[in-house]
Amino acid sequence: MLNFTHHIPTIVYFGKGQVSALEPELKKRAGKVLIVTGQGSVKKNGIFNHVIRQVKKADVPYVELSGIKPNPRLKSVYRGIEICKKESVDFILAVGGGSVIDASKAIASGVKYDGDVWDFFAGDVKPTDALPVGTVLTLAATGSEMNGNTVITKEDTMRKLAFGSPVIRPVFSILDPEYTYTVNKYHTAAGVVDIMVHVFEQYFSHTPASDVQDRIAEALLKVCVKYGPIVCEKLHDYDARANLLWTGSLALNDLIGQGKQEDWASHAIEHELSAIYDISHGAGLAIVSPNWMRYVLSRNTVHKFVEYGIKVWNIEKDRSEMDIANEAIHRTEKFFKSLGMPTTLKEVNISDEHFEKMAKSAIEDWGEIGSFKKLTEKDIVQILNASL
Amino acid sequence: MLNFTHHIPTIVYFGKGQVSALEPELKKRAGKVLIVTGQGSVKKNGIFNHVIRQVKKADVPYVELSGIKPNPRLKSVYRGIEICKKESVDFILAVGGGSVIDASKAIASGVKYDGDVWDFFAGDVKPTDALPVGTVLTLAATGSEMNGNTVITKEDTMRKLAFGSPVIRPVFSILDPEYTYTVNKYHTAAGVVDIMVHVFEQYFSHTPASDVQDRIAEALLKVCVKYGPIVCEKLHDYDARANLLWTGSLALNDLIGQGKQEDWASHAIEHELSAIYDISHGAGLAIVSPNWMRYVLSRNTVHKFVEYGIKVWNIEKDRSEMDIANEAIHRTEKFFKSLGMPTTLKEVNISDEHFEKMAKSAIEDWGEIGSFKKLTEKDIVQILNASL
Repeated sequence: MLNFTHHIPTIVYFGKGQVSALEPELKKRAGKVLIVTGQGSVKKNGIFNHVIRQVKKADVPYVELSGIKPNPRLKSVYRGIEICKKESVDFILAVGGGSVIDASKAIASGVKYDGDVWDFFAGDVKPTDALPVGTVLTLAATGSEMNGNTVITKEDTMRKLAFGSPVIRPVFSILDPEYTYTVNKYHTAAGVVDIMVHVFEQYFSHTPASDVQDRIAEALLKVCVKYGPIVCEKLHDYDARANLLWTGSLALNDLIGQGKQEDWASHAIEHELSAIYDISHGAGLAIVSPNWMRYVLSRNTVHKFVEYGIKVWNIEKDRSEMDIANEAIHRTEKFFKSLGMPTTLKEVNISDEHFEKMAKSAIEDWGEIGSFKKLTEKDIVQILNASL
Repeated sequence: MLNFTHHIPTIVYFGKGQVSALEPELKKRAGKVLIVTGQGSVKKNGIFNHVIRQVKKADVPYVELSGIKPNPRLKSVYRGIEICKKESVDFILAVGGGSVIDASKAIASGVKYDGDVWDFFAGDVKPTDALPVGTVLTLAATGSEMNGNTVITKEDTMRKLAFGSPVIRPVFSILDPEYTYTVNKYHTAAGVVDIMVHVFEQYFSHTPASDVQDRIAEALLKVCVKYGPIVCEKLHDYDARANLLWTGSLALNDLIGQGKQEDWASHAIEHELSAIYDISHGAGLAIVSPNWMRYVLSRNTVHKFVEYGIKVWNIEKDRSEMDIANEAIHRTEKFFKSLGMPTTLKEVNISDEHFEKMAKSAIEDWGEIGSFKKLTEKDIVQILNASL
């Protein structure tokens, strides 16, 4: 286990009706609020009304920024920053999924910075301050509600970049499983895949003796394997929604990654896909991740796949190591498929047209890709070709 | 899963040499520090010197309270409060294990209260403020380094009571696995038992669909089962010390108990034992916990023992439910024994002399005992008799 600092101060209000925590939280923290939302679903399903009722009870004035798209764009972030400055906003409330929260965090850091907020994403500067952000989460997937990360796409170059900083970790997040009921089957399944691949990125590592992190990682994967099919069958299953919602937060709040070398190659590759093609992040990961697994599987990495196969998929221990590893990868892909996710690029109409460009751009954006196995441009092209 | 609020703001500095985090933390937070220690081990093994070097680097004046005993006494808490008031202390640094940290937390809350600090333990009043507490942990067991609980014994009546409040949750804790190297085999084993029983108290519950919490609980138990024997064999094994240290914190920082009904009957019974006999808490739990398990096992509870047996002890699924449950309890007791822990009261020279009194006092102190199975005085006497 490597040294680490563990600090997850976000207050999570978890469960039915927890939106009522908004009133006291806003009263305590906010003078004027920017409420950030996505493409209208929270207005249709009534969640926005619940939120507004609380904001009014707290008697805090607010302004709105709506229309944040999946794979949120820098332009929306600029617009948010402008509103905050003009309206003297001192608190940002994100009501939505990962895209809305990520946009909110970017706005929060941009308001307190004199330069271009893109500098943070480009890695030129680190933010030192941000407006406080609270969230009302409507999708189990992102982890953004409990961590200090944000991912934004710059539309002119189609670069999709991330940065992480403790100053943008939400101060509170409201997680009501019923607020995820109206997410349709496709996006629910994409969320499950996203959670699982978040775990993979931290689980597949050469750091020795990180048993605590790894057993917890397997615990989270088992919850996904159990409840993924249940929720896709019955979108209003409270137990399934609750377990997946909480798993999504714990999968990417630092708990299972700290003290380990992390990988993130599948995400690096997927970001290139969803920057250009605007496919759902979870769908992109369902395609890329099993092919990444197959590509990095070797005598040097097989032990970790064996652990994964036995502990998560209950594969019989008496088979050969390579056999267990291949079976584990096969089951992963089959599981994604069973949830209705695509597992080939063909299914989402992506050809090999931009593979070389994407591989180059991934290396440019991330510097180094992969630590479980370091990937070159050629490696990335091969993984993409295998994903066709 | 029940509704819950998750808020664990303690900053944990985990790993070799993390004592260096003390200097900036104290500089930022402290005007004058009370350093609380136990019965001298940290002065013998050099940890105290490391700490003092940091305190001096931070250039913060300090006073000392040493001599805190296991099962810490109210008298020491009063002494600490007196020192803090007289010396205008504004920060408490606990250097030691659970007893030292618990005493420090009690002092921290007492300083900010005009009445008798025992009021908090008696349940008459809730603390609303406390001095900030930081810890340098030297024993994997307590969980106190990341939670808001404290347990103190009032010597005149030998009542051992607890209270919990967010105001006494440590602001930071330094967890260096090497700082636990000098804990001897007996106390190391007692620590492993303590961690496991903390998990049991939260795991054995009738709350349905708490999969996230339960799979994580099993993860923590598996780490104990793997590394308990290794560390007892080799006290300086870094990997074992690191995994157990981190497991101890996660086992009792709210993560696995929130959203569930918790039990705590084994602790209620053990507290009566260690209040009167001053035996090690972990040793008391090694005796009581398996007998509690046997006593509460019924058709109504067997499913949870089956889950425990299959997932933690890899017992074959094709045996009958009762068979798996009994085997799981048997393996638990055998495991404690294999670590060198007592599993009968006879081994620690405790007779049935005070059983009736202890049972009565437990009910008095805790109000209601057990939620997995609610226990009466008679039940407690029977569990104690079975533990002879």
